[in-house]
Amino acid sequence: MRLALAEARDAGARGEVPVGAVVVDDRTGHVVAAGNRVEELADPSAHAEILAIREAAAAAGRPRLDGMDLYVTLEPCAMCAAAISLARVRRLIFGAYDPKMGGVEHGARVFDQPTCHHRPEVVGGVAEQEAAALLKEFFKEKR
Amino acid sequence: MRLALAEARDAGARGEVPVGAVVVDDRTGHVVAAGNRVEELADPSAHAEILAIREAAAAAGRPRLDGMDLYVTLEPCAMCAAAISLARVRRLIFGAYDPKMGGVEHGARVFDQPTCHHRPEVVGGVAEQEAAALLKEFFKEKR
Repeated sequence: MRLALAEARDAGARGEVPVGAVVVDDRTGHVVAAGNRVEELADPSAHAEILAIREAAAAAGRPRLDGMDLYVTLEPCAMCAAAISLARVRRLIFGAYDPKMGGVEHGARVFDQPTCHHRPEVVGGVAEQEAAALLKEFFKEKR
Repeated sequence: MRLALAEARDAGARGEVPVGAVVVDDRTGHVVAAGNRVEELADPSAHAEILAIREAAAAAGRPRLDGMDLYVTLEPCAMCAAAISLARVRRLIFGAYDPKMGGVEHGARVFDQPTCHHRPEVVGGVAEQEAAALLKEFFKEKR
């Protein structure tokens, strides 16, 4: 989560919403880190989680991340939560809760749907205050 | 939808789940078409809708597709539905309904959440039989 927070800080410095994500493969020791790049890439799907998942899957040479864990500084939105499920991520560890945009504990609650084919283990609220403070500061400066 | 169906057929011929998507910008006449490339790209996010949205956004030079319409042969999953919302797509026209994986009329019902910030106009069941037949044939051959 330290590394995800560093990615979040970098994203904020680039003018992106400060969210960072890291995919860890315990077995190989392979680690992939990414920050939000929505504005830079002009890509609405370029959330930190999607970028990290795409890079980890490309490195693995397959579209599934079985056995891998994803750390992200903010509760994933519905898009990212569904991507996490599609990618068969083993464990999702997230920082701040997101009542407005979150799709795990809020809104679409993607993993709680009976049609959800893979539900990762979920741990929320890890380094929550630090992750939330980054976001709060970012949006305060924007307004 | 003709073009989306052709993309779906191409995807099936490549061994991908046969789904195709097209983004149309009325004002510029710009059209982007894509088919599923999950296996080919080893990318769990490489659904037809995401690929079409990414290409259209890159062409527009901004992460929002205001005023653009998305045609897709199958009801989008929760990942794609949320991406459609994030991208501010104006109108979503889809073919077959998907009770197992769909996230629009089934499962997470992304656009129906009170936290959904942009809900496109939705028209489902367009060329439904043709789109459904493609999928049925694909999965019959797989089994």
